[in-house]
Amino acid sequence: MIQRLCVLGVGLIGGSLALALKRSGAVSEVIGYEKDPLYRAKALSLGIIDRAEVCLAEALRGAEVVVLAVPLGGMEGLFQQMAPHLKPEMVVTDVGSVKGSVVTAARAELGTRIVDFVPGHPIAGTEKSGPEAAFSDLFCLHKVILTPLPENRPGAVETVRRMWHQAGAEVVEISSAYHDQVLAGVSHLPHVLAFVLVDLLAKVGEPQDTLQFAAGGFRDFSRIASSDPTVWRDICLANREPLLALLDHFEAELHTVGEALRHGDGGKLAEIFARAKAARDTHYNA
Amino acid sequence: MIQRLCVLGVGLIGGSLALALKRSGAVSEVIGYEKDPLYRAKALSLGIIDRAEVCLAEALRGAEVVVLAVPLGGMEGLFQQMAPHLKPEMVVTDVGSVKGSVVTAARAELGTRIVDFVPGHPIAGTEKSGPEAAFSDLFCLHKVILTPLPENRPGAVETVRRMWHQAGAEVVEISSAYHDQVLAGVSHLPHVLAFVLVDLLAKVGEPQDTLQFAAGGFRDFSRIASSDPTVWRDICLANREPLLALLDHFEAELHTVGEALRHGDGGKLAEIFARAKAARDTHYNA
Repeated sequence: MIQRLCVLGVGLIGGSLALALKRSGAVSEVIGYEKDPLYRAKALSLGIIDRAEVCLAEALRGAEVVVLAVPLGGMEGLFQQMAPHLKPEMVVTDVGSVKGSVVTAARAELGTRIVDFVPGHPIAGTEKSGPEAAFSDLFCLHKVILTPLPENRPGAVETVRRMWHQAGAEVVEISSAYHDQVLAGVSHLPHVLAFVLVDLLAKVGEPQDTLQFAAGGFRDFSRIASSDPTVWRDICLANREPLLALLDHFEAELHTVGEALRHGDGGKLAEIFARAKAARDTHYNA
Repeated sequence: MIQRLCVLGVGLIGGSLALALKRSGAVSEVIGYEKDPLYRAKALSLGIIDRAEVCLAEALRGAEVVVLAVPLGGMEGLFQQMAPHLKPEMVVTDVGSVKGSVVTAARAELGTRIVDFVPGHPIAGTEKSGPEAAFSDLFCLHKVILTPLPENRPGAVETVRRMWHQAGAEVVEISSAYHDQVLAGVSHLPHVLAFVLVDLLAKVGEPQDTLQFAAGGFRDFSRIASSDPTVWRDICLANREPLLALLDHFEAELHTVGEALRHGDGGKLAEIFARAKAARDTHYNA
């Protein structure tokens, strides 16, 4: 049982975590630190948080666990501001979609309190944002990745692991570097592709003329292009190196497909398509 | 009421059309022409067709309406084989995902019977294939695009339009050229991108290691990569020119995003992402 949880940022993820822990009786009191007055009011009225704070020192006071649930661009500044107010054994974690950049910022700002900072990333979300999008089931049947640091106090890792279990998630531990490489492939690059495609279609023709002929495949493919642009700008910038490496690789593969198409090489196309189908079917229908 | 419908190819689309028309009482008898013995047996046992034929002349005999529902690569050969057996006022239509190539093949093979060939394309489907994937609701709330030819007998167009209405679809008419350009954007290019991404990820790491960290966004984005490789090879080849033009455009846009990322230009990224989100939200949430 967490006596007092402090959530920094009460949007979709922070809000859903608070709701999930409340529902399972794993937390007594949730304090929300949130700059947006509309988010604060909404989070209070929806019962996501018990108290809203605009002063960070006040929000952190007496918290057992602190969760940074702000866009990646806000992490470094928060670490800097919170550092003087962290008490021994006050466990800190985050929900950032990129881990390397968050770890670098935490190491730079938290000093010896790094022992109680456990990096995390719930693999869950929707294309919606804000406290009104939060729901307590968001993490059920989903993975939460923790990338514990060599400096971490084992008890801190255990506290964060237990918190996510109680929110309904499955917890796995991998390194920050591996996390960032894998997520570039299964999340960051797909978002970029979806954003670029939808933007291209909107440029080529009137979207209402073109999209009326789209079927379910396109609706699903493009769903992630409705994601928050600021959040995704931050993610791309924060995971720049792994994402660029994969993007280069993707561009080369796409060029290969274009050349096969240009030369009418149906065998090459079918080979690539069949390999992709096999890989996907193996995972999703196994 | 269609007294006798002949479906050439009893897979997902041909099978679903037969089921939809039977359910609405719009057809008395459905004859299936199908080369795959497993498909034939399945279509018969599921009540999709009333009679299976392996001889094309026999399948066409006495049919009021003939629907070509085979992969695009099989269309030209079928037009050639069926031409001698077409009777006056026997209405022929197809369900091909590309219209220009089908129209060219039909004009080359059907002679004066082109007056009764009405090109069509239902904007519906799933990533599954075969008669066991067919269901009578497939076309409900979906559009069917007809691209009537200047040569068409008005009664033929009306027969095909009525058939699709009775299958539950909304019928729209546009030109073949416009169809192929629009579908390259909302269907063909997205499929290529999904295939290429999944294939790339399977090459970079073990799919089971990588995909376990994928969330709902990736599952939805990549669903179309589970589509039939042969069908999609045919579609890409048949719509080569519009697809290549758009692919070139996409590659240039993706390169722009890569450069913005390389130079840390968050403003450029956010601008593209926000424009895409606005275009998609306008269509899907309007």
